[in-house]
Amino acid sequence: MNDLIEANPNVIVVATTMQGGPQFVPPAERVATFDQDGTLWVEQPMYSQVMYCLERVPAVVKAKPELAEVEPFKTVLSGNREAMARLSKQDLEKILVATLTGMSTEEFRAEAKKWLETARDPRWKRPYTELTYQPMQEVMKYMRANGYKTYIVTGGGQDFVRVYAEEVYGVPPEQVVGSAGGTKYGYDKSGKPFLTKEPRLLLNDDKAGKPEGIHLMIGRRPRAAFGNSAGDREMLEYTKAGDGARLAMLVFHDDATREYAYGPAKGLRASKVGTFPQALYDQAGKQGWVVISMKNDWKQIFSFDK
Amino acid sequence: MNDLIEANPNVIVVATTMQGGPQFVPPAERVATFDQDGTLWVEQPMYSQVMYCLERVPAVVKAKPELAEVEPFKTVLSGNREAMARLSKQDLEKILVATLTGMSTEEFRAEAKKWLETARDPRWKRPYTELTYQPMQEVMKYMRANGYKTYIVTGGGQDFVRVYAEEVYGVPPEQVVGSAGGTKYGYDKSGKPFLTKEPRLLLNDDKAGKPEGIHLMIGRRPRAAFGNSAGDREMLEYTKAGDGARLAMLVFHDDATREYAYGPAKGLRASKVGTFPQALYDQAGKQGWVVISMKNDWKQIFSFDK
Repeated sequence: MNDLIEANPNVIVVATTMQGGPQFVPPAERVATFDQDGTLWVEQPMYSQVMYCLERVPAVVKAKPELAEVEPFKTVLSGNREAMARLSKQDLEKILVATLTGMSTEEFRAEAKKWLETARDPRWKRPYTELTYQPMQEVMKYMRANGYKTYIVTGGGQDFVRVYAEEVYGVPPEQVVGSAGGTKYGYDKSGKPFLTKEPRLLLNDDKAGKPEGIHLMIGRRPRAAFGNSAGDREMLEYTKAGDGARLAMLVFHDDATREYAYGPAKGLRASKVGTFPQALYDQAGKQGWVVISMKNDWKQIFSFDK
Repeated sequence: MNDLIEANPNVIVVATTMQGGPQFVPPAERVATFDQDGTLWVEQPMYSQVMYCLERVPAVVKAKPELAEVEPFKTVLSGNREAMARLSKQDLEKILVATLTGMSTEEFRAEAKKWLETARDPRWKRPYTELTYQPMQEVMKYMRANGYKTYIVTGGGQDFVRVYAEEVYGVPPEQVVGSAGGTKYGYDKSGKPFLTKEPRLLLNDDKAGKPEGIHLMIGRRPRAAFGNSAGDREMLEYTKAGDGARLAMLVFHDDATREYAYGPAKGLRASKVGTFPQALYDQAGKQGWVVISMKNDWKQIFSFDK
């Protein structure tokens, strides 16, 4: 990061950790929340979890062969990327339900873990878990070193992100807040209890769902929040509406060479994944949120960059 | 506590904290869950939160005078305890909705805090927050001193318990899992965002809802779980179903002199509040759960006992 951008987490940390200072915050109340997709790791051209779901379809069809001739599974099995990109939201939901629910929480965990170990991002030919932003990893570590609890607050699936968040970000499962479905308690043949993942949405942790999820899962207003898209607006507003020192930052993807460039803020190509509208850019300016230009403010993007 | 009962938390703590030992558990995975009503504090003759709701009714009717002639509010306003005790579950739900929802999360917190400071239990003439069991407070402290995170997992309202859990038990809001309703994000006249408590149940954190809530909010299986009623059965089963050292304990209320005696296990009077059926007593025996006899095993019950 360049000095200007690095200065912002510094300012809030110094203000809130100075014993006897006017903005001192007790360690128990030091909460920092981070969106994941596009804020901590790459979200283009498609969310990693959606890749997981699409790549799980053959296994699902193997278990239920009657799905092979049913849409949208037929299209996914065809491997035709263009046809897949045109799938409707309803079609995508059918795929999510088929690949993320119906199994035990432990089976899901094992399947997702295996995929994460073997799947590769098509551009960098690396595991998705290596595509995290080095400057954000540094912010998280810096805040933790100063008594902050770092939470991930993601529109992605809570159970999915919990599989790798501890290893990849140092964020334990109980500090991952995400979109969450219900589970159902039951017993196997030997009488051992287990939980089955159900297609019943409890929390849609996106937009207004982010502060709602923060209240549900954390019960404290964050001191600092980091996002990158319209889905993070309410979380940043809610954070800044608290008293004392507060910090809101947005990662702006304007580096097509080293990563991706999309908006449509500042005239960049519009993207359905991680939309950053001009109105968000303008709101950030008005409300004192810091916009990070990936191109100008980050010296290094990935840990493997030279 | 007597030596036998004290030994049980000791055994699991020693086993799971011994570096290099066969049952060692890393600090991050040391999770202990505690039911609240009847396990950490008195639940008879009525849950404290229900007392709160009943005592809030006059304020609710003052704001909406048309409710004064409508049941069940009319009965509650009459102050007739016998009639109130006969209110149906549906009536009680109407009272909960009227007193726990419709306001901002911050208004609710302020109202509950004020009540807790002034309300007194009719038997002990003390604030409800003083009616916690000293031996359980000691278990919580002992486990925390050994790297365990202590969670409350309660059928009571998550927002209600969070108001006092940090001060009373040393359990921060993010470690309180309870029955939880949805909230709705909005803006006040000045444009400041806030959350409104809605009458939309997200999690009924009782019986099977306890392991489901633990998965949702913690994402880890507890190593130790403490309860006192049929509502805790699934939480204890789920805890014991994990591998390695696990502990399950049940507080049995058999001391009518110093506290209350109710079951119906072992022929004690049956209670709707904190039911402890004979089947639970038998299951505890079969599955190696430890039943604590309040009468025989606890030397002291409250911190104010001589």
